[in-house]
Amino acid sequence: MPTLRRDPITARWVINPDLADDQASSLIEMEKLIPHGTCPFCEGNEKYTPPEIYAIRSKTSTPNGPGWEVRVVPNISPALKVELELDQRAERMYDLMNAVGAHEIIIETPRHIANISDLEVGQVVKVMQTYKERIFDLKKDKRFRSIFIFKNYGERAGSSPIKHAHSQLIAVSVTPKNVKEELSGAKEYYDYKERCVFCDMIKQELSAEKRMVCSNNDFLAIAPFASRFSHEVWILPKKHSVDFENTADEQFEKLASLFKEVLLRLKIHLNDPPYNYIFHTGPNRTRRRGEAWKTIGEDFHWHIEIMPRYTRIDGFEWGTGLYINATTPEQAATNLRKVKI
Amino acid sequence: MPTLRRDPITARWVINPDLADDQASSLIEMEKLIPHGTCPFCEGNEKYTPPEIYAIRSKTSTPNGPGWEVRVVPNISPALKVELELDQRAERMYDLMNAVGAHEIIIETPRHIANISDLEVGQVVKVMQTYKERIFDLKKDKRFRSIFIFKNYGERAGSSPIKHAHSQLIAVSVTPKNVKEELSGAKEYYDYKERCVFCDMIKQELSAEKRMVCSNNDFLAIAPFASRFSHEVWILPKKHSVDFENTADEQFEKLASLFKEVLLRLKIHLNDPPYNYIFHTGPNRTRRRGEAWKTIGEDFHWHIEIMPRYTRIDGFEWGTGLYINATTPEQAATNLRKVKI
Repeated sequence: MPTLRRDPITARWVINPDLADDQASSLIEMEKLIPHGTCPFCEGNEKYTPPEIYAIRSKTSTPNGPGWEVRVVPNISPALKVELELDQRAERMYDLMNAVGAHEIIIETPRHIANISDLEVGQVVKVMQTYKERIFDLKKDKRFRSIFIFKNYGERAGSSPIKHAHSQLIAVSVTPKNVKEELSGAKEYYDYKERCVFCDMIKQELSAEKRMVCSNNDFLAIAPFASRFSHEVWILPKKHSVDFENTADEQFEKLASLFKEVLLRLKIHLNDPPYNYIFHTGPNRTRRRGEAWKTIGEDFHWHIEIMPRYTRIDGFEWGTGLYINATTPEQAATNLRKVKI
Repeated sequence: MPTLRRDPITARWVINPDLADDQASSLIEMEKLIPHGTCPFCEGNEKYTPPEIYAIRSKTSTPNGPGWEVRVVPNISPALKVELELDQRAERMYDLMNAVGAHEIIIETPRHIANISDLEVGQVVKVMQTYKERIFDLKKDKRFRSIFIFKNYGERAGSSPIKHAHSQLIAVSVTPKNVKEELSGAKEYYDYKERCVFCDMIKQELSAEKRMVCSNNDFLAIAPFASRFSHEVWILPKKHSVDFENTADEQFEKLASLFKEVLLRLKIHLNDPPYNYIFHTGPNRTRRRGEAWKTIGEDFHWHIEIMPRYTRIDGFEWGTGLYINATTPEQAATNLRKVKI
C-alpha cells in the first residue's frame, strides 16, 4: 500500500508509492505490450492507456476510441491511489497515512506534437478547460486538500520518454509544505495590510514595467522579483481571483493566448529548453468531518509558475532553500520581450 | 554588485551573483589561462587557483606552493562577496540586500582522485578538520548567519567539470528558508516535549533497527523515516551536540570512518551515483548590533544529509515541496547494510 510519511522535524511529506502491488504490476505489464515505436498518446492508440477518465470528444465517437481532442487517463504508474480510505496512524514518534489521491495524465492533443507551445490557441483553450473540469470534479472529494496541475517538458525537467504533449494532475490528502508557506505568507500579508500580496505585486509590476514580459486586458506575465530559475515567468489574472477553476469561460481565450505566447518566447530565446510549469490554485476548502473551519486560502490569488530548467540545481539549493540565479529578472524580461514572434 | 532578493510571499531568498563585475571577469580570465587537460586542484598547479585562504601543509612548504594535504581557496566565480557592507533596502514592496558572504572551495586531496570515498580515513579526518576550522573562523564574522559545507559529486548533482575531490563552503547573511524550518521545527518539538527531536529519533532508530545503515560508539547512519531521495542517508552524533565545529578532536577518526563507510556503501550499491551532501550545523548565534537575543538554534542537533541523485526531480517536487520516493527507507537501509566492504 502506498504511504505518505511526515518528517518529524520539518513536517515535510514524502510519498512512497507501492511499486510491488497488484495494480501497479498489471499496468507495468500493460506498458510492456506497447509495440516499439508506438506512441500510446496518439489518436488510434487508445488501447495502450488505462481507460479514460474524461475527454473532450465528438458526439459520434465512443470513449477509449478515436475522435477526441483532449483526453485524461490515470497515470500508468501512479504515485497515489484513489480507492484508499484516509487512515492516519503513528509509528511511535513518526506519522504516516495511506497515500490517498489521484494521479492523472492530460493528453493535450491527438496529434504527435511534443511542446504545448506548438499547438493552436484554440487547442490550448481546450487543455485549460480540461484542467478546470478535472479540478472541479476532484474538489468535490473531501479527502483531497490540494490539487496540482503540472508539466515536465524535456528529460532534464523530469519528463517521461513519451514525446507527445501531456501534463499531469496530482490530488493529495495533505497540504504540502510549499503550499502552506505560500498560503500563510499571503494570509499574513493580508492580515497586516488588508490587501492581497499578489494584487500589490501586480500593481507594482505594471507600473515599474521592467519585469513585465507581456500582458493583455485580463492577464499578465512577469519575471518575478525573486526568480529562483533563470528566465522564470509567472502568469497571473489581473483581477483578484482565488481559484483557477472559477475562471470565466470567456477568459480562457485570453489566458491560453498569453500562456502560449510566453512558452513560445521561452522556446525561441532559450532554444527549446526543458521546463516545468505548475498551476497554483486555491486549496480545497471543503471541510472534513470534525474539522474546524479554516479561512486559509481565502486571500490567495491563483497563478501559473513556469520554470525553465537549463541551469543545474545543486546540493546547496536542495539543502538550504536558498537559490542562486545568474540572470536577474529584469534581464530575463528584457530578453523575452525582445523575442520576435 | 551581487544581491540577495526576498520573495514577498514565501520569504524565500535568492542570490543574484553579479557576473559582470570586475573581480568576476578577472577570475574568468584566470580560468582561461589554465592549459587544456590541466587540473587546477592538483598539487603543483596552485597558480591556477586564486590565493589560498587556509591549508593543512608541511612546515617547510610555502603558501600557494606544493606540500599541502587539504587546501581552501575562494570560488573562482563566487555567488557572494566577502568585502561588501551589510546593506538592506527596499524597492517599494520588495526587500533586497547586498549579497555579502563567503564562497570557498575545499580541495580534499593533492592527488587527482574524484570521490572522497576513495581517500584514506586519515585524509578524510583532515578534510573534516578543515571544515571545522573554516566554520570556526567564519562564525566570528557577525555579518554571517548561516554557514554551509556541501558537496556536488557527478554532473547530475551539479558538480563542476573538475574531477578532483572538492567540497564547497557558503556563508550568508540571512537564514534560508529550509534552515529556519528545521530550526523552528526542532524548537517547537523541544518546547512541547522538553526533549531534542533528533535525540528522540536516534533512540527510536537504534531500538527499531530497520532503518539503521551502520554505527559506531559515537555516530550513527540511518535512512531517515521520510527520505526525500532513494537511499538518502543521515549521519548524526549519538550524543546531543548543536554545532559540528564543537566536535572533539578525538571524535574525528570515528566520524570520518563512518562517513567514508556510508559513501562507500552507496558507491558500491548504486554503482558510483551522483550525490550531494550537506552539513547541517547550528546557526551563528553571535548578535548583530541592535538585534534581540534569539535562542533559536540552542536545541538543534548537527548532522550530515547525504542525497544520492540518480532519480530525477520533477516540477511536482519543486512546486509543492512534496516528494515522491520509490524506495522505502527500510528497503534502502537493508540494501546498504548488505553491501560487503
